[in-house]
Amino acid sequence: MSHLITKVRSKQPLIHNITNQVVMNFTANGLYALGASPVMANAKEEVEEMAAKADALVLNIGTLTSDQVEAMILAGKSANQAGIPVVLDPVGVGATKFRTASALKILDQVQVSCIRGNAGEIANLAGVETKVRGVDGAEDIDVQQLAEVAFTKLQCPLAITGAQDIIIDANQITFIANGHPLLTKVTGTGCLLSSVVAAFLAVSDDVQTAISDAISYYGIAAELAAAEHQNPGSFQVAFLDQLFLVDEKTINEKKRITRS
Amino acid sequence: MSHLITKVRSKQPLIHNITNQVVMNFTANGLYALGASPVMANAKEEVEEMAAKADALVLNIGTLTSDQVEAMILAGKSANQAGIPVVLDPVGVGATKFRTASALKILDQVQVSCIRGNAGEIANLAGVETKVRGVDGAEDIDVQQLAEVAFTKLQCPLAITGAQDIIIDANQITFIANGHPLLTKVTGTGCLLSSVVAAFLAVSDDVQTAISDAISYYGIAAELAAAEHQNPGSFQVAFLDQLFLVDEKTINEKKRITRS
Amino acid sequence: MSHLITKVRSKQPLIHNITNQVVMNFTANGLYALGASPVMANAKEEVEEMAAKADALVLNIGTLTSDQVEAMILAGKSANQAGIPVVLDPVGVGATKFRTASALKILDQVQVSCIRGNAGEIANLAGVETKVRGVDGAEDIDVQQLAEVAFTKLQCPLAITGAQDIIIDANQITFIANGHPLLTKVTGTGCLLSSVVAAFLAVSDDVQTAISDAISYYGIAAELAAAEHQNPGSFQVAFLDQLFLVDEKTINEKKRITRS
Repeated sequence: MSHLITKVRSKQPLIHNITNQVVMNFTANGLYALGASPVMANAKEEVEEMAAKADALVLNIGTLTSDQVEAMILAGKSANQAGIPVVLDPVGVGATKFRTASALKILDQVQVSCIRGNAGEIANLAGVETKVRGVDGAEDIDVQQLAEVAFTKLQCPLAITGAQDIIIDANQITFIANGHPLLTKVTGTGCLLSSVVAAFLAVSDDVQTAISDAISYYGIAAELAAAEHQNPGSFQVAFLDQLFLVDEKTINEKKRITRS
Repeated sequence: MSHLITKVRSKQPLIHNITNQVVMNFTANGLYALGASPVMANAKEEVEEMAAKADALVLNIGTLTSDQVEAMILAGKSANQAGIPVVLDPVGVGATKFRTASALKILDQVQVSCIRGNAGEIANLAGVETKVRGVDGAEDIDVQQLAEVAFTKLQCPLAITGAQDIIIDANQITFIANGHPLLTKVTGTGCLLSSVVAAFLAVSDDVQTAISDAISYYGIAAELAAAEHQNPGSFQVAFLDQLFLVDEKTINEKKRITRS
Repeated sequence: MSHLITKVRSKQPLIHNITNQVVMNFTANGLYALGASPVMANAKEEVEEMAAKADALVLNIGTLTSDQVEAMILAGKSANQAGIPVVLDPVGVGATKFRTASALKILDQVQVSCIRGNAGEIANLAGVETKVRGVDGAEDIDVQQLAEVAFTKLQCPLAITGAQDIIIDANQITFIANGHPLLTKVTGTGCLLSSVVAAFLAVSDDVQTAISDAISYYGIAAELAAAEHQNPGSFQVAFLDQLFLVDEKTINEKKRITRS
């Protein structure tokens, strides 16, 4: 079966990102490297119009403010009306009450196509007890069990990423074993992955395939970059190069996806 | 004739940037690499004072808010009073009504020395019919004709950049054929160019020469970087290196400027 | 005596940064490279809770707004109550009245463990007459004399960094001669150093040792990076690599610290 990376590169979907200030530059560069077209617009005055022109919308609460949450809801409703996919990245949910409440408010008012987060964030969003410290996730969670409990609670396709990635929706669970630990030494690699998932969702209605193709592509690019550069500064540069370079043939050889 | 790059490097002009959140870091690093001195300040409480101390001001609406537009107008008026050049980068004008209205409001209240944008942005600013999708420009425009119509309408020196760059003012049209397509794979290369134009305008009263020297220098740095690195992550790093390295002799050998 | 770098890497302190938009990404990547864990949170709704969970707090006024100054004070008071160190980076103090007033307001309401700035910023903060142009410091200051006068006035440990670094508190003055001029060609290297100082303060109660170990580590990483890359784009990448790589043995061989 062909991999969606080729379709993303030929369609060049326009991805509207309302994302945190830490990762805006890296997200835009990662989307360009992938072959998608990024746009960032945060003001309430324009987000509805921008989202309506885009092929997918990303809502990332990494440096949220009350104003930005309002803008996200406006953009999300506009995206819903336009029928384009919406990805929520609940950065740091559980670290503060404001983050948790904001993410739940967005989920209440916007129909989300996929939530992508680490195990700690998804657990907190679903009300599963765990500890979150900062924005780097939690420990000691049985991720498959978490995925099932969280999906039952949230009723939305989930991509829980970490050492092993799990994708769950109403029909299927997918496990992906690609990726590299160096991704945890570069800020924004989770955030960029959420935007990459949005780009893949923009070109396919098959949510499970779109998410798993996005995540396997991303993990393999990291593996190829880490094979050449083991330090975080040069790894980041090589990773952007590999997002641009890695082709369908290499992905099909290296992807480690299992379904249950 | 000597190239203004040498004068920029010896004078190290202070460039006050009110710019978008995506490109702030890259803009600052690019200006340092060039030999200029960047400062970013956005708050209404301080922009007038900062602009009055600077050698040039850049107004970039890439992630604008109503508050930021007000700050831009305050800074712009202060720059006008101080007699320093002001460059407007109308990022994404045409993509939303808010962007178009904000750019026109700035132009109405601030005397701008140069507007630098892609063909789609300049067309929308001048009310020439075209399609803009996101922030990456438009297709199928006769750029010279656009330049002439837009200049007649806007009555301000324009730098329309793309595969071929055109500079137009009351006296002359200049065409520049330097640059490289990889620039379109790195976010903020247009925005940084606007700041580089500001740095050149800060050291010369000859607007046509300042803008064309800025654009040829920038394009040649990209050509040299692309000769060594063909992937976007490593190209970006090499491009910053070349902004720092490229000398007047190399620029004079490689520049491809024609005037009409 | 062992160097605190090893303790930072084993404890991985969580550093809460309320910092400027230009350097957020570089600061987060630098802290990851060091072995610390960064978190950025700016909203008044959540900064108290986030600071209370962190191991140190950094307040950096590089792109301040009135709202952000309020958030900094809330976070600072929360950090004081939690007993964690607070580092103030008074970026550009002296360039505008708003910056100077905001920094003094923070110092009035928050107990700060260390102020890290260049000579111009510290001079302006202490009311010592000098000229500041933009955010890149001042000229012609006798730095040791400045340190003594400023400490008497501010009554807070100071790290004044530049060609030679000086650390002063009630008991001691330390001079550090590590570092490299290329640091001045990369934006945010001063800001990141403030966050690195915070990470070292998070693992030791000995303020002089924590600050001087942070600064010597940082300067040596720059020296090693500059030995391989002399242009600013590739130097920045190599510098992040060296922050990750440089070990205690190398630091102890290369550190140039004198105390008076």
